Amino acid sequence: MNNEFKNQEADARGDGYLPGLAIDAVIFGFHDNQLKVLLLAYKNTGLFALPGGFIRDYEDVNEAARRVLLDRTGLTNIFLDQFYVFGDRSRHDAAPLKAIMAARGVMPPENHWLLKRFVSVGYYALVDFTKAIPTPDSISDSCDWYALDDLPVLMQDHQLIIQKALETLRINLDQKLIGFNLLTEDFTMGELQNLYETILNKKLIRAAFQRKMLSLGILERIAKKFTGGAHKAPYVYRFILEK
Amino acid sequence: MNNEFKNQEADARGDGYLPGLAIDAVIFGFHDNQLKVLLLAYKNTGLFALPGGFIRDYEDVNEAARRVLLDRTGLTNIFLDQFYVFGDRSRHDAAPLKAIMAARGVMPPENHWLLKRFVSVGYYALVDFTKAIPTPDSISDSCDWYALDDLPVLMQDHQLIIQKALETLRINLDQKLIGFNLLTEDFTMGELQNLYETILNKKLIRAAFQRKMLSLGILERIAKKFTGGAHKAPYVYRFILEK
Repeated sequence: MNNEFKNQEADARGDGYLPGLAIDAVIFGFHDNQLKVLLLAYKNTGLFALPGGFIRDYEDVNEAARRVLLDRTGLTNIFLDQFYVFGDRSRHDAAPLKAIMAARGVMPPENHWLLKRFVSVGYYALVDFTKAIPTPDSISDSCDWYALDDLPVLMQDHQLIIQKALETLRINLDQKLIGFNLLTEDFTMGELQNLYETILNKKLIRAAFQRKMLSLGILERIAKKFTGGAHKAPYVYRFILEK
Repeated sequence: MNNEFKNQEADARGDGYLPGLAIDAVIFGFHDNQLKVLLLAYKNTGLFALPGGFIRDYEDVNEAARRVLLDRTGLTNIFLDQFYVFGDRSRHDAAPLKAIMAARGVMPPENHWLLKRFVSVGYYALVDFTKAIPTPDSISDSCDWYALDDLPVLMQDHQLIIQKALETLRINLDQKLIGFNLLTEDFTMGELQNLYETILNKKLIRAAFQRKMLSLGILERIAKKFTGGAHKAPYVYRFILEK
């Protein structure tokens, strides 16, 4: 058996990776009242997808998630949180994987590991999309931000994965706010309310929002913002970093 | 090759199961100001563990979690929620699996699938432990409730899994309250506060607790509890089932 054939067999078996387990990352981008999500377009396939990949046998799963995001998008230092395991049998769909491999000139055997059923661990993050500039990897034509209300058709169950990530983000927004590092160091209550309104996709009542945010005990009031007209200047706040 | 040997090979490969993926269930039990957790003791091993198992290749992962819980504990109709994927490489420890198989007279080959690295999907639930009566399966000596502050030494990273489940329960208690079905249909604010205090393991201020619970919009006030002395009777509440 020559080496090339041995390597093909090892590739087909998925040697070096955990079998049947994938990672998909939902990176939400916020800026200036807009919420977007990061998607890849696979070369010569017309397939759009979340940045995702597989776990090497020497990696922790959380570590693999950060490495996969870096490999696929060039993004680093992003605080990724697990949010759900997508494990329905019905998500198994080998066709897009075959198309992606075919576009690279690979004709996989039917028992190739990538064509089998995968369970995917979903991770999510929320970043400022003007500060997170993605770079497509060698098998993607593009890696770009898309408005949530104007997504292309996505492969497999990636639309569902985004929906579940968005629900999780909305439920956990209070708790995750500090870690996500989305606002400038000092911000006004109005800026914070804009962030909430955009992510929750609804208008909030100003007084109730302010009362709720102050009751969370995560904000400290710094000073009035200097605008020239002191009596109209809003207070600026900052997150209390130690709990 | 005779059939028995074929079956042994298929067993060793883990045919019929998803490779490398397990389920562990943290079932918290609450009653009368006590919080407990459900543990199995494996026969003739001295090993204590969370109820757990593996995913059949025709099962959804969430479906497998319910079936595993039923197989291992006899409990059914329990609302299981995913809470975390335990995927660190360091959790790989084949020794307890070898001991469990040895206690059943099985000497597995070194490449047996159960001795390889597993990633485990953690599920949790909160039930009334007086209503959930567990039954040990054929490979366990017992399946019982243990007080959280008096746990036996647990195999692998099961102590850590319980800790993470407890953190999740504490963070999500408000949101999960209705589904968990822990109180009688009608309950007093004091009974609800006891539940919170036990799970959070701290005393809460009565007025602040009441204000917070009422602000969640999940309670409806039914009537005063009949105690004979009407002016001292507490109100009784019930969860609003439609949101």
